[in-house]
Amino acid sequence: MDILIKAVRLPEGPVRDIFIENGRIDEISPECNRPADRTIDGKDKVALPSFINGHTHAAMTLLRGYADDMPLKQWLEEKIWVLESKLTGEDVYWGTKLACLEMIKNGVTVFNDMYWFWEDSARAVCDMGIRGILSGVFIDMFDPKKAREQIDSNVELFGTAQRYRPNVVFALGPHAVYSVSKESLQWIGAFSREHELPVHMHLAESKDETSFTRKNYGLSPVEFLEEQGLLSDRFAGAHACWITEHDAEILARTGASLVTSPVSNLKLSVGSLFPYRLVQDYGIPYCFGTDGSSSNNSLDMMETMKFASLLAKFSTGDPTFLPARETFERATRGGARIFSLGDWEIKVGSRADVILLDLTGPQFVPNFDIYSDIVYTARGCSVDTVICMGRIVMENRRVEGEEEIKRRALQAARGLSSR
Amino acid sequence: MDILIKAVRLPEGPVRDIFIENGRIDEISPECNRPADRTIDGKDKVALPSFINGHTHAAMTLLRGYADDMPLKQWLEEKIWVLESKLTGEDVYWGTKLACLEMIKNGVTVFNDMYWFWEDSARAVCDMGIRGILSGVFIDMFDPKKAREQIDSNVELFGTAQRYRPNVVFALGPHAVYSVSKESLQWIGAFSREHELPVHMHLAESKDETSFTRKNYGLSPVEFLEEQGLLSDRFAGAHACWITEHDAEILARTGASLVTSPVSNLKLSVGSLFPYRLVQDYGIPYCFGTDGSSSNNSLDMMETMKFASLLAKFSTGDPTFLPARETFERATRGGARIFSLGDWEIKVGSRADVILLDLTGPQFVPNFDIYSDIVYTARGCSVDTVICMGRIVMENRRVEGEEEIKRRALQAARGLSSR
Repeated sequence: MDILIKAVRLPEGPVRDIFIENGRIDEISPECNRPADRTIDGKDKVALPSFINGHTHAAMTLLRGYADDMPLKQWLEEKIWVLESKLTGEDVYWGTKLACLEMIKNGVTVFNDMYWFWEDSARAVCDMGIRGILSGVFIDMFDPKKAREQIDSNVELFGTAQRYRPNVVFALGPHAVYSVSKESLQWIGAFSREHELPVHMHLAESKDETSFTRKNYGLSPVEFLEEQGLLSDRFAGAHACWITEHDAEILARTGASLVTSPVSNLKLSVGSLFPYRLVQDYGIPYCFGTDGSSSNNSLDMMETMKFASLLAKFSTGDPTFLPARETFERATRGGARIFSLGDWEIKVGSRADVILLDLTGPQFVPNFDIYSDIVYTARGCSVDTVICMGRIVMENRRVEGEEEIKRRALQAARGLSSR
Repeated sequence: MDILIKAVRLPEGPVRDIFIENGRIDEISPECNRPADRTIDGKDKVALPSFINGHTHAAMTLLRGYADDMPLKQWLEEKIWVLESKLTGEDVYWGTKLACLEMIKNGVTVFNDMYWFWEDSARAVCDMGIRGILSGVFIDMFDPKKAREQIDSNVELFGTAQRYRPNVVFALGPHAVYSVSKESLQWIGAFSREHELPVHMHLAESKDETSFTRKNYGLSPVEFLEEQGLLSDRFAGAHACWITEHDAEILARTGASLVTSPVSNLKLSVGSLFPYRLVQDYGIPYCFGTDGSSSNNSLDMMETMKFASLLAKFSTGDPTFLPARETFERATRGGARIFSLGDWEIKVGSRADVILLDLTGPQFVPNFDIYSDIVYTARGCSVDTVICMGRIVMENRRVEGEEEIKRRALQAARGLSSR
């Protein structure tokens, strides 16, 4: 499908026509009159690369608002895990579709996920026309039998996964150091090296987690993971609220990346913020994630950018830290670099994962600085049009099949809570 | 104007018809068929009391995005104050209208303001059909001549202000302890007592402010204000990030209230968060404010609620702190109590400052808990209809005169930055 976007503003100011062909931006010029299958009016809109959600559990949309304002342990044990134990693949399919729908409405076209029922998530992502780096959750709770099952299941998924390309990339998803055995982590490290697979893992989210590895292995979570051969430039660790300077040195040396989920960290009250200054000083690549709908409860990367930028300023005591433009870039091409997605800008040759932001709301007056407006003022609801891999997935805020997705996801969630 | 809202959901669950007459909710029943001037379809919407913005500087919309990511002193001295010195009454009129427009779109019908050109702000508020507690900024910089001018000007405004009722309430607005002399503060205290006027003041926002009063008066800002007779149940102090337990005891004893602006505190990196636990332990009434558009940069009280609730959890280390429902109540009837606005609920006899929230977005599935969805998931852009004092000011997200307001405010902002 060829798409021509007429007279749209670019972030740097000028108004241009953009021609998209074969999934890439093919031309950007003052006037383009090539014939296109679809023409979009860019008036009063700005074209931006889409957002990349660096850490989430998509199908947890089904649990949104089911349990809030609770201590983490009670929240997990009495609420979340109870409902999750009843989940079916069909539930996950509709929950993931709902998450994709919400992310599309917020300008997200790629997300890095960890959840159960991998193939159902993968089907949902493909059906929605966006992209996911999906990991099957790997949890063995130190039980060799479970470990074997998980390994077999991941080997099988790795084979199956080819079927869902190019929308879906298979990743390994060891849940956390307190839920996966040393031996399994070593296997994951080796399998990731052998097949060049991304690894997505919770890392140093809570103090309990660091106490766990200190007690059991005499090491910090990062030190322990390095020892198991898990850290490399394919590794993305989520949270990292509790890392030390030595950890930062290891992460930098191994080329590992981090994803901060500021909203979730506040809501679950994990006791420490992402160490923005330390991570920057060591040049560790990082981007942003919403985390799942149960601990946020919104999949809006624009909101997440604002939280991240403001918490960075507050926690460093420096109002110039993580300025608007850098924040925007970390949420777009910074994420693209971490997840090996290639170029991620509005320029000729880039992948056409492009969104149009509607600037007609009063919050965009006077619009002195587009990056400031995007990060500090806008919300996902100002996204008007979303193009993923050169295909329109939302136009004028309408997404195909929206009503059915909401209805079926609602049924699934209600069934789950009454089952 | 009589308004009939048909088949709308109430927060507690049931679907009802609501009849509004003479600015109050006159009937809530399963079916009401009284003739009305306007009938609104409440399908897929929930009726809520409107939000109250406890602290802002409305016309600073004109400066939004003009200067961000800067240290406070440089930001004020090189950017904000330079532009503000060029402001005209006409600028403030359009800037305030733009702010009112944005607040209406976010479900706010009352705001507590402090800014220059009082009458121009008052005109704007009346023309927009919402409500403001407006204070003229009182700054004398310890200059007796300026103090005299400010006193005269406030006495005059107090007389003029009657003209703008009922939309506008006149308040005294001593800017801060470091910009208003002791003598002026004493005069403000006495004038407020004599005429029962609200007092709106920045209070203990930064460490510099507490150092200032310690150095000059040997007291904390709160202790100093008590000594000047300024603290009473008419006093609302904005920020209060740097208060002590003794300060909290004084605030509780005098009946003073506080307004926290969490987004601004992070963005300007003031070094300390609002002391949620302390303030709650002493039972000090508090509500939320956006602060001005230059330090936020959005006038969305729903976003501010989320920041407040999550920062409260994080800073107390308690994920059960400031739960969704309490957060919502502080942003609505909590504010109404602080600003003496009367009942502020969806019940017969209450003022008809009512908003309808559109629940059709994917973010409202599965909707297990309406308060959780309002605080943690929703944003102002889901507000569909706004009624202020029994009059519709927005329906289907359309506000009368929107295009002109945006155009004129843009002209004013551009003129200001190039003047």
